[in-house]
Amino acid sequence: MAKFVVIGERLSATAPAVNKAFTERDPEPILLRAKQQLDAGATYLDVNIGPAENDGEDLMKWAVQLLQSNFDNVPLALDTANAAAIEAGISVYNRDKGKPIVNSADASGRIQYVDLAAANDAIVIALCNGEGIAKDNDERMMYMQTLMERGMEHGMDVENDMWFDPLFLVTKGMQDKQMEILEFIKMISDMGMKSTGGLSNNSNGMPKHIRPIMDAAMIAMAMMQGLTSAIVNPNDLRLMETVKSCDIIKNNNLYADSYLEI
Amino acid sequence: MAKFVVIGERLSATAPAVNKAFTERDPEPILLRAKQQLDAGATYLDVNIGPAENDGEDLMKWAVQLLQSNFDNVPLALDTANAAAIEAGISVYNRDKGKPIVNSADASGRIQYVDLAAANDAIVIALCNGEGIAKDNDERMMYMQTLMERGMEHGMDVENDMWFDPLFLVTKGMQDKQMEILEFIKMISDMGMKSTGGLSNNSNGMPKHIRPIMDAAMIAMAMMQGLTSAIVNPNDLRLMETVKSCDIIKNNNLYADSYLEI
Repeated sequence: MAKFVVIGERLSATAPAVNKAFTERDPEPILLRAKQQLDAGATYLDVNIGPAENDGEDLMKWAVQLLQSNFDNVPLALDTANAAAIEAGISVYNRDKGKPIVNSADASGRIQYVDLAAANDAIVIALCNGEGIAKDNDERMMYMQTLMERGMEHGMDVENDMWFDPLFLVTKGMQDKQMEILEFIKMISDMGMKSTGGLSNNSNGMPKHIRPIMDAAMIAMAMMQGLTSAIVNPNDLRLMETVKSCDIIKNNNLYADSYLEI
Repeated sequence: MAKFVVIGERLSATAPAVNKAFTERDPEPILLRAKQQLDAGATYLDVNIGPAENDGEDLMKWAVQLLQSNFDNVPLALDTANAAAIEAGISVYNRDKGKPIVNSADASGRIQYVDLAAANDAIVIALCNGEGIAKDNDERMMYMQTLMERGMEHGMDVENDMWFDPLFLVTKGMQDKQMEILEFIKMISDMGMKSTGGLSNNSNGMPKHIRPIMDAAMIAMAMMQGLTSAIVNPNDLRLMETVKSCDIIKNNNLYADSYLEI
C-alpha cells in the first residue's frame, strides 16, 4: 500500500496572517508556513484563498507560482469557492510532483467541481454531502454514488482521482456519530476508493491541550479503517508521529529506528 | 459498550525491584507501584510472581491480601506458571470489585488453566497460540476454537469470562504481521468475544523514545478493531490518553472537557 498522504492545511485565508499575506501578495509568511509544513512531512499543501471573489484568478496564479517555484514544484490542493480561480491556478500549475487537487466538490451545489477536475485532469476531493450533513451512512453512500457517477460520466479515473471525504464531525456535540464516520471510511476503502477529509473537525471546541491528543487517536482509528489521506496541520507533532507509526503498522513504509525523522 | 479495561503490568517479577520486594515480602515497593498504576487509570493489576516454584502459594496469598486490603479490593490478574499459586491466591481473593483473572491459558501446554479458571469461577486470558506462534489467522482461529470448546466443556461463560489474546508480535522483525493481528482482533470482536493482550510486545526492541508513540498508535488501531482490554503500563501517559480518547470516540464514555483527568 502507498504511504498516507498528508495535505497541509496551514495556508488558509481563515488565518488572519495568511489572509493579509494573500491580500498584500507578501511572499514571506506564505513561504515560511509552506516550509514548516513540508519540513514536517506534508506531501500536498492546501491553498485556501477564501471566496476570493474579486481577484481570485490572479491571487491563485500568484500563490501557485510562488509555492512551486520555491519548493521544487510541490503538489497543491486549490481550495476556493471561486471556480475560475481554481482553473487559473491549474493553468500555471506544474504536474511534475503530482496532479493538482480541486478542493472540493459535494453532491449538491458544488457538484460541478467534479466536472472542473475532470476537464483539467485533476484530482477532486468529493465531500459525501448534499445540502446538509448526511443523516446516516445510507445517505452518505447515496451522495458518494452520485459523485462517482458524475466522475465516470466525465471520464475520470474514479479509483485514483476522486478522493472521498466522509466529513469528520465535531465529537463535542456529535459524539455518537464518530463510529459511523469511521465505518463509512471502511466502506470507501472496501470499494477500493481513496479518501481524505479535514480531520481536526473532530476536536473542534475542545480545550487546546486536548485537540492533538484527540486528533491523533482519531487518525489512527481512521487509518485502521483505510483512510488514505487527511487535511491536517502537519506541525502537530503528535499527529504526524501517529501517521508515521500507523504507516509502519500497516506496512506502508519499512520500519527503521529513524522512521519518525523522515 | 463498556469502557476499555486496562490491566496494569508493572507488578512483575521480571522487574528486579519487584522481584526483590516479592522475595523479601517488602510491601512498600509493591504498594507504590500499585498506587501509581491505579492513579493513572488501571482497572485491574496484574500480579506476576514469576515461576515461583518454591513458595508461590504463600507469595501469591501475601500479594493478593496486601493489594486488596490497601486498595479497596482492587481486582487482580494472577500471573504465574505455578497453578497451585494461582489457586492459593484465589482462595483469599475478594470479588467485590471483579472476578480474579487467571493469566494465562494457551491451546497447548497451558490449556489446563482454562479448567482452573472454570473451577474457580474466574476470568481466563486465553492466548490463541499452540506450541509456537500461530502462522496465520486460520491457525489462530483454530486455537481460539480449541480454547472456547474447553471453556464450554467446563461450563464457562465464554462471552464474558474468556478474554482472547491474539499475541501482539514484535513490529521490528515481524512488521508484515501487524495487520494480521489487527484483523484477528476484529474476528474476535465480530464473534462477540472479549480480548486482551500484552500490547508493548509491538514496540519491543525499538528506541526508548519511540515505544510510547508506537504503542499509542497500535492501541488506537486495536481499539478500532474491537479490542476490549490490554495489559499495559498505565504510567505511559501517551498510551492512557489514547485509550481514554478512543473510549470517547467509540462512545464508551461520555465526553467532558475533563475526560483525560478521570
